[in-house]
Amino acid sequence: MSDQTSQNLFANLPTDLTDELVSVLAESAHVRIERLVSTGQCSEPVFWYDQEEHEWVIVLKGQARLLFENEDDPVTMLPGDHVLIPAHRRHRVEWTTPDESTVWLAVFYSNRDPQK
Amino acid sequence: MSDQTSQNLFANLPTDLTDELVSVLAESAHVRIERLVSTGQCSEPVFWYDQEEHEWVIVLKGQARLLFENEDDPVTMLPGDHVLIPAHRRHRVEWTTPDESTVWLAVFYSNRDPQK
Repeated sequence: MSDQTSQNLFANLPTDLTDELVSVLAESAHVRIERLVSTGQCSEPVFWYDQEEHEWVIVLKGQARLLFENEDDPVTMLPGDHVLIPAHRRHRVEWTTPDESTVWLAVFYSNRDPQK
Repeated sequence: MSDQTSQNLFANLPTDLTDELVSVLAESAHVRIERLVSTGQCSEPVFWYDQEEHEWVIVLKGQARLLFENEDDPVTMLPGDHVLIPAHRRHRVEWTTPDESTVWLAVFYSNRDPQK
């Protein structure tokens, strides 16, 4: 028997979500890898995420729009699009497509490269 | 002008690779996120990766087979398939499809969760 088996990021996608679904895929002291699934969910208009950790995030299915505080225009995220959200860079999910599940892969981490 | 722009993981895929192409997408003291592109490349039959860091890796395009030391059968990786390779778990890429570019997203990190 193998101790190494793979799982699929696009398996077991719920079709009837009332809230965003968060699944932790891997975790260590300094990093957390999550799958996020949304179906038309977005942040409340008055809500901003303000996170302690940096977040590198990619959309792998579906579509979304991310708005950063003090920006006029949202960033449209199509499959393959990725963006780095520095810690405490306030942002919100302005829109996700209601037509299908939007699958995000997010890597949260706490320390920036000391050389940068 | 926005200071937040996205990039696409599937953009600028080279079509004529002689070696695997590695691009660092984000990096900190404890984590490194890389895009890996292979077109038919695999490890030499006698070569094993033996890494200091844990590697969480997902195939997002193409196909590959990963072989772990002391396993009879490789793990087939199709788009969406992901696997955690613990540090020093010896492995090699037995095969990637020659028909198209295989795009991997890999997250390398140095510390395991102390609770596990």
